[in-house]
Amino acid sequence: MATISIPQGTRDFSATVIRKRNHIFSTIKTVFELYGFQPLETPAMENLETLMGKYGEEGDKLIFKILNNGLNHEKNIDKAKEGFEKILEGKSSADVTERALKYDLTIPFARHVAMNHTKLTFPFRRYQIQPVWRADRPQKGRYREFTQCDADIVGSPSLLCDVEFALIYHEVFNRLGLKDYELRINSRKILSALSKACNAPDKLVDITIAIDKLDKISFDKVREELIEKELTEDQISIIEKYISISGNNEEKVNQVSAIIGNIEEGQAGLEEIKNVLQHTAGKNIAVDFTLARGLNYYTGIIYEAKAPAAVKMGSIGGGGRYDDLTGLFNVPGIPGVGISFGVDRIYDVLEELLLFPENLDQSTKAIFFNMGASESQFAFGIMQQLRASGVAAILYHDAAKISKQFSYAEKYNIPFAIIIGSKEIEQQYCQVKDLAKGEQHEVAFDQLANFLKDR
Amino acid sequence: MATISIPQGTRDFSATVIRKRNHIFSTIKTVFELYGFQPLETPAMENLETLMGKYGEEGDKLIFKILNNGLNHEKNIDKAKEGFEKILEGKSSADVTERALKYDLTIPFARHVAMNHTKLTFPFRRYQIQPVWRADRPQKGRYREFTQCDADIVGSPSLLCDVEFALIYHEVFNRLGLKDYELRINSRKILSALSKACNAPDKLVDITIAIDKLDKISFDKVREELIEKELTEDQISIIEKYISISGNNEEKVNQVSAIIGNIEEGQAGLEEIKNVLQHTAGKNIAVDFTLARGLNYYTGIIYEAKAPAAVKMGSIGGGGRYDDLTGLFNVPGIPGVGISFGVDRIYDVLEELLLFPENLDQSTKAIFFNMGASESQFAFGIMQQLRASGVAAILYHDAAKISKQFSYAEKYNIPFAIIIGSKEIEQQYCQVKDLAKGEQHEVAFDQLANFLKDR
Repeated sequence: MATISIPQGTRDFSATVIRKRNHIFSTIKTVFELYGFQPLETPAMENLETLMGKYGEEGDKLIFKILNNGLNHEKNIDKAKEGFEKILEGKSSADVTERALKYDLTIPFARHVAMNHTKLTFPFRRYQIQPVWRADRPQKGRYREFTQCDADIVGSPSLLCDVEFALIYHEVFNRLGLKDYELRINSRKILSALSKACNAPDKLVDITIAIDKLDKISFDKVREELIEKELTEDQISIIEKYISISGNNEEKVNQVSAIIGNIEEGQAGLEEIKNVLQHTAGKNIAVDFTLARGLNYYTGIIYEAKAPAAVKMGSIGGGGRYDDLTGLFNVPGIPGVGISFGVDRIYDVLEELLLFPENLDQSTKAIFFNMGASESQFAFGIMQQLRASGVAAILYHDAAKISKQFSYAEKYNIPFAIIIGSKEIEQQYCQVKDLAKGEQHEVAFDQLANFLKDR
Repeated sequence: MATISIPQGTRDFSATVIRKRNHIFSTIKTVFELYGFQPLETPAMENLETLMGKYGEEGDKLIFKILNNGLNHEKNIDKAKEGFEKILEGKSSADVTERALKYDLTIPFARHVAMNHTKLTFPFRRYQIQPVWRADRPQKGRYREFTQCDADIVGSPSLLCDVEFALIYHEVFNRLGLKDYELRINSRKILSALSKACNAPDKLVDITIAIDKLDKISFDKVREELIEKELTEDQISIIEKYISISGNNEEKVNQVSAIIGNIEEGQAGLEEIKNVLQHTAGKNIAVDFTLARGLNYYTGIIYEAKAPAAVKMGSIGGGGRYDDLTGLFNVPGIPGVGISFGVDRIYDVLEELLLFPENLDQSTKAIFFNMGASESQFAFGIMQQLRASGVAAILYHDAAKISKQFSYAEKYNIPFAIIIGSKEIEQQYCQVKDLAKGEQHEVAFDQLANFLKDR
């Protein structure tokens, strides 16, 4: 066997990392549940046809496909051969693969809703915290297996739903100590109105894609792209004016109103944004009319959350309203709105800003040192009493040198060492060493649980 | 698109099921942590070579293999063709698949330990609660994606470790209310001694496999199998005597002692069993010398947990000691002992015996009825105060008929409905309906959080 390794872009998570990740997950989960969301879990695998064609051509290539089992059975050889030929031609073949790993949580959720829409009660509020898989080229901060945290409300067009997600971002980031996060908001309706204000409603997608790139490229480059897409100078000058909108939220709303305020869709978009702003007074929320978000299924309010500017991390969450997600599965007319948290990036941000709570990495409270065969038999009983009282404890497995046992306690960050020798057995107490403080206490056996619980 | 479905043998988990499953997971996790185990998570995918050959020929076929990405790129066509040919011949090909979904938690754990053995501090106590995938034919209680819960201590030969697992089973099953579980114990050393007592040490595997089948087939069938394996009548009569051992634990130990007590390995096995029994006095534990457990890597104490006899469910857990797991990955000499819980079966058992706690399926405490645009704006503010106090609440999304809003509350098992109309806004209180009891209370806005928290 060659060197042992794990697949590129995947990770083993050790206890320390898991506890930090759980701190993020449980914070998000607690807030989702406070806001009335119910958990949902879908399988790692979906039928390939459920996923294909939903993420664009590039996305299709990044879906991990699972080889059908039984390919080596004789009866399937001909079919398999045909299937392989198709795969080589870049087509898909159910004779070779008919299942794949999920690529995000949204499409499996849409599939779940479409499958169960006659049984579900709408509006349906669900959250989902699960891994997804993408055959992307791995790089810093980008993995082939990573966890998504989504919450969606489906089955209601009410703006009350959209508002809640701004508040959820606020609550989660504040609980995580990320007070300087940024939340940007826009409405797809305003972008659509812009294309109409330019008399180019057919160029909506081109305009949106170009504006979406402003984060990465200069306006001159965006202008080139618009010219390429055959927009006129007049049209581009409207877009330039739109892009130059600045000031506080109120000022921006007034400026955009001058450009798209006489278009019905623009008015609707502005009402949405004003409504959200009204419910989120005093929270970090910034109107950004250049916010577009790549995915094309958004139709109303869109959100993007960014890490504090000091950490160069970019987006740590996003979402928005979509009118017809389950339409993909022939169940039209179920609108929805939802957001996602980028957990891996949030992890890196909290790490960089030292925002993880200090006591996360302690789980085992006490270690009983092993002082020999009969002493350790005795200590075992005391340990069981401790565990029964809810104190996590272990007994060192053999009577090694005390220095070795100390070093073990240190490696596992166990704060208390308990020593029970023959004298202690006789006198019914133990020596408790507080390893952080370097203090030593004599504690009666029947007081040990309370002594440790208080610290 | 054809009918929407999910892959055979996989499941969507709704909120109710997730809460019940989490009840099991969190019980097991709490006990694992009380016993000083640290969490570990490994990726869903492993390199194919990590998994192949570890589960026997049948197991290899049941491993879900992942198709390499980029197969449809021109430059890879020749390689892919060659690869497909190999696959058709029943061989594996890294040009077609080099990754697979994990089949259990043990081999990925062994791979993790082997990869990190110079960095880890031994004994290393880890637990792992994660899904695994098997291309088995789905049937009642058998899924293609299911969750395993494992705990292992590696790096110590001490019997103190083995003992802890009997106590963990006891603690977990008692916390789950499964007081009538059975825990069977044996030692592989005793089975090995039996083969020596028969003067057939080379037939150890045959004897073990035959005895292992006693649960399913009669002794006459086992006898046939032993004859087929060329065991003599004398040898078979020793095995028959061994199989007929009965009585309480002490009696069984005495009887087996008469058969294998003069063989060194048998003595060692008996000492192990006596030691475990001594530490588990008063717990459900039954010596069963016919317990073999299929997997061949066990070398010492073995365990099998069974559901209460009233539920015909069979094994709900098992495990044992192995001497050299990481040897598979060229890192020899790391012994270990560990157990596993069969969560899906435990779920079915708790369901059948009505052992899930009653209040599991309530997460959202209150729903604010929507009494119109301005009233609901006001209610939104009160709801935010409630959420800030830690009470999960929602506001119905539009001003539907009250009967519809009641029915929504009922569907989601929300126990309290809160009504705030114009009169209530003026007088600063709300109507709180306790939907289970059919009672109605008038509660001042500033008392609402306390009122609901107490119920």
